[in-house]
Amino acid sequence: MNIGFIGTGVMGTGMINNLLKANFSVTVYNRTKKHATNVLENGAKWADSPKEVAQKSDLVITIVGFPKDVREVYYSDKGIFAGIHSNMILVDMTTSTPKLAQEIAKTAEQKGIAALDAPVSGGDIGAKNGTLTIMVGGKSNDFERAKPILSVMGNSIKLFGSNGQGQNAKMANQIMIAGTMTGMTESLLYAQKAGLDLNFLIDMIKGGSAQNWSMTNYGPRILQNDFAPGFAAKHFLKDLRIALSTAKEMGLNLPATQEAEKLYKKMVEVNNLGNLGTQGLIKIY
Amino acid sequence: MNIGFIGTGVMGTGMINNLLKANFSVTVYNRTKKHATNVLENGAKWADSPKEVAQKSDLVITIVGFPKDVREVYYSDKGIFAGIHSNMILVDMTTSTPKLAQEIAKTAEQKGIAALDAPVSGGDIGAKNGTLTIMVGGKSNDFERAKPILSVMGNSIKLFGSNGQGQNAKMANQIMIAGTMTGMTESLLYAQKAGLDLNFLIDMIKGGSAQNWSMTNYGPRILQNDFAPGFAAKHFLKDLRIALSTAKEMGLNLPATQEAEKLYKKMVEVNNLGNLGTQGLIKIY
Repeated sequence: MNIGFIGTGVMGTGMINNLLKANFSVTVYNRTKKHATNVLENGAKWADSPKEVAQKSDLVITIVGFPKDVREVYYSDKGIFAGIHSNMILVDMTTSTPKLAQEIAKTAEQKGIAALDAPVSGGDIGAKNGTLTIMVGGKSNDFERAKPILSVMGNSIKLFGSNGQGQNAKMANQIMIAGTMTGMTESLLYAQKAGLDLNFLIDMIKGGSAQNWSMTNYGPRILQNDFAPGFAAKHFLKDLRIALSTAKEMGLNLPATQEAEKLYKKMVEVNNLGNLGTQGLIKIY
Repeated sequence: MNIGFIGTGVMGTGMINNLLKANFSVTVYNRTKKHATNVLENGAKWADSPKEVAQKSDLVITIVGFPKDVREVYYSDKGIFAGIHSNMILVDMTTSTPKLAQEIAKTAEQKGIAALDAPVSGGDIGAKNGTLTIMVGGKSNDFERAKPILSVMGNSIKLFGSNGQGQNAKMANQIMIAGTMTGMTESLLYAQKAGLDLNFLIDMIKGGSAQNWSMTNYGPRILQNDFAPGFAAKHFLKDLRIALSTAKEMGLNLPATQEAEKLYKKMVEVNNLGNLGTQGLIKIY
């Protein structure tokens, strides 16, 4: 099976390298070609547009930045839909809106091909190690066809429902993380101001009912002044905005998540720290 | 050593029973005597006031409801300080204000005795099983004297610093929990509204970077409509208010924790659901 892959950022690079290691033929495209150097050296083939990727592939994976980038990659003149052929599967692994996932699926259906939304969690390390969690929306038989390829990139792959439900599962995940990140940040700030030993506190929190992945993993990085992105704050802000606008469309008000969005907005758009990891939130208080 | 114990609520009862099992002599007092029935049947002795408890004990433990209750138990006419004698240690295990802990320690020092603040986490189950986390503030030698008794009730006992620092460590813990509880609540609400399978979602979150104790433990209870208190919402609201007022005194603004306080205020004071467990927050959205 020939695989197409659009988006050779930090995530895409790890995922493509795992596909290459599993002996798949992979044709790639990226807006900035130099970011594809690593995978091209490892055996991926270059195409000059998403259209050309689609023409050369049976299954096309996309993982780009924002919903507008997804739209461009699928719908522009040189986009994926301009290069499709029968029996194809399109898999968008960008964290994007449930609505756009449904729109892409509808277009694909009208053209007689299949589409899945399959956003991931697990960060750059999960992408590199092939241990991503992949949350899928789409038809069951399309899911089964794509699963052997997804299994090369992730170790927990779940079909959550129809098209868009992969994105919704990812949103529920990000809303949870909004809680652990804001809680961790304010807990550490309080403890620091009170003069507590923060290593001691992090260690204690690990063993009790306040325990969470963010404190265990990001707490020590913050104490070492390590704000490099596992996951860039600008992308988390995007995710929170998709979650909140989708919630609003469903008639749901999420005040704690709104507060998290305000804080990350301040970090990204006022303090211009969007390229730091999400743990950099502590810098804006 | 004769131990005095004031407060035979859900937490106190479990802790006293562990002291009795370890063959300590325990004299108890509680504002409502009938709540002491269980421990009296198990061998605890009754005293008619905190003063009388102090007169009969070498080490007095208090775990009552609110800071005003702590103040009354220590400072009223029939309070602990009216019954003290030399070489005593007073240990307040109520979650209370760092300021009051410092005030009690100062009074104790003036009277030539020792005081520790030692709030706990681990809930009714931890109290029953003797597996509480105990966060201590006070002098090192006083801590060492009390430690053998504290070890009967908890399995993680840490001295965080001078008097009040046990309370500050507990506040940092509760601020973290404010994040996991609000995040969990809004994540489940979003997922429910989007039509996702919530068991499936909880299971997925367990394995990734959104993982946290609240989702793992309270998520399934919420799905079973189980809102019985591990930890009553009215007490969590008290904790958040202590955390926020102490933060304010230190010149620290904690917007996410403030939002959590607003939500729990609505639950406890508007919807009158303060006797439910903290997981009942989901009922007010």
